[in-house]
Amino acid sequence: MQANLYGGIEGGGTKFACIVARSPQDILAETRFPTTTPGETLEQVINFFKPHAANLASMGFSSFGPLSLDPASPTYGHVTATPKPGWSGADILGPIRQAFQLPVAFELDVNAAAYGEWYWVEENRACDPLVYFTIGTGIGAGIVANGRLVHGLVHPEAGHIRIPHDWTIDPFPGACPFHGDCFEGLATGPALAARWKIKGENLPDDHPAWILEAEYIAEAMANVIYLLSPQRIVLGGGVMQRKNLFQRIHQRVQEILNGYIASPVITENIETLIVPPALDNRSGVLGAIALAISLTGSKGK
Amino acid sequence: MQANLYGGIEGGGTKFACIVARSPQDILAETRFPTTTPGETLEQVINFFKPHAANLASMGFSSFGPLSLDPASPTYGHVTATPKPGWSGADILGPIRQAFQLPVAFELDVNAAAYGEWYWVEENRACDPLVYFTIGTGIGAGIVANGRLVHGLVHPEAGHIRIPHDWTIDPFPGACPFHGDCFEGLATGPALAARWKIKGENLPDDHPAWILEAEYIAEAMANVIYLLSPQRIVLGGGVMQRKNLFQRIHQRVQEILNGYIASPVITENIETLIVPPALDNRSGVLGAIALAISLTGSKGK
Repeated sequence: MQANLYGGIEGGGTKFACIVARSPQDILAETRFPTTTPGETLEQVINFFKPHAANLASMGFSSFGPLSLDPASPTYGHVTATPKPGWSGADILGPIRQAFQLPVAFELDVNAAAYGEWYWVEENRACDPLVYFTIGTGIGAGIVANGRLVHGLVHPEAGHIRIPHDWTIDPFPGACPFHGDCFEGLATGPALAARWKIKGENLPDDHPAWILEAEYIAEAMANVIYLLSPQRIVLGGGVMQRKNLFQRIHQRVQEILNGYIASPVITENIETLIVPPALDNRSGVLGAIALAISLTGSKGK
Repeated sequence: MQANLYGGIEGGGTKFACIVARSPQDILAETRFPTTTPGETLEQVINFFKPHAANLASMGFSSFGPLSLDPASPTYGHVTATPKPGWSGADILGPIRQAFQLPVAFELDVNAAAYGEWYWVEENRACDPLVYFTIGTGIGAGIVANGRLVHGLVHPEAGHIRIPHDWTIDPFPGACPFHGDCFEGLATGPALAARWKIKGENLPDDHPAWILEAEYIAEAMANVIYLLSPQRIVLGGGVMQRKNLFQRIHQRVQEILNGYIASPVITENIETLIVPPALDNRSGVLGAIALAISLTGSKGK
């Protein structure tokens, strides 16, 4: 039998997801389990893929960061300094490579999610650049420009951009240990909870928290639009599960841009510019599959 | 004789530059003249190139904007709404195409300058992404990512990103008619002149104006670094002629990032990340040559 399947791993801080697939429409096996120690977690990953190993052409591994992503570095494939107990300095790519002797694409979670949304979603594939944001426990972004992920010096750290913060309306000083009131300091789930002394999921839809949250997200998206002129912005992550945020973000982005960018995509159809993920909670793991396919330079769609 | 030369046009709001060249080291003819009416100015352009026409393989035209850049649009190659008398709606590409019957790459000035700095400068060519900013009468940016210019929905309008503005230190409300105190509203040459009631070129090196100017540029560059992780940022334009700005920008960017991005390029060698243009005032017109070469998919370096 031909090796015409791909393995996708999404390593998150709280859980891991693994799939064997050819495409989003052709998933042959799938599992999710809690993230424990690196040794135990990676053993579970390996055990899941073992029965499929002979049929895999390549694999993709999308992980929470920070990661060592430079293939030339002796620490390539390691998690670097993280507060997560047991994971700092852990070699997470090595055991997977050793177990299966296959090419493995290794990528930061938010980059893989961006690539997945671009690669698999037909109406996204034509969008250049495409920006994917996750807004949840932290804030991060991945960018696909001219058909490939943007890595750059390290990788985008878009959560830390500065945005306007009106202290008279919002005296919360921000929760970022590095910058206080950067975007991440103002708008993550934990920032929301610290500001209102109540978890986001327990705040009703009509709570003023969501007006402020939409405001910060809209200010950040205005900066992203000015700087990159994206043709699509996908907003994922836990905070964006609150679906009524989208309408207010759309309205505020239009107001902030104030007609300056005279494209009907912004002035009339902004709901086609700033969208929820099309792959739902599988952007990352299907992004890993897409990276695995791109690695072998074959097949795909 | 073989057509192995290229024509480059840089159309600026105050002057036009034209060159016939193969590379920055191989310029065969060059001229600059003031920008008057579209008809008169384009006639001068055509007259300059006429003696070289038989030797040109293609041309590149880099122009001030706003421009209609979509080849599918019936107004492709026109200047769109501009306050510049006589130029609003002018077809500037048509007359050049008609005169020479050659392929002509048409691009916004700041994009062409970005491409020129990337294409011709060996140490820039390895940098991905490369971001070029012009900070002068206005502020704009061009981005080269994965080997090509980023166009996106329209094109980057990076001058209009929001950055922190401390009103107690700087009560100047900003000069942008759309957004007041966006980056462009705070940091252009005209904003500088309006704030201090004296033209920038007449302010001494030790004037506090430059401390504030460096601060705003550094805040904007921090956002650019977070969002794009560029491997090089080239800062050109009239304001950046004040060369002692660079050192202060370097220092402030390091302080603002506060060690968050743990790359030695930022923490130790930031003068290699944020640099003046290597092509001096020819980034644009040599960018037009590079675009002309890329258009024919031939030769070049």
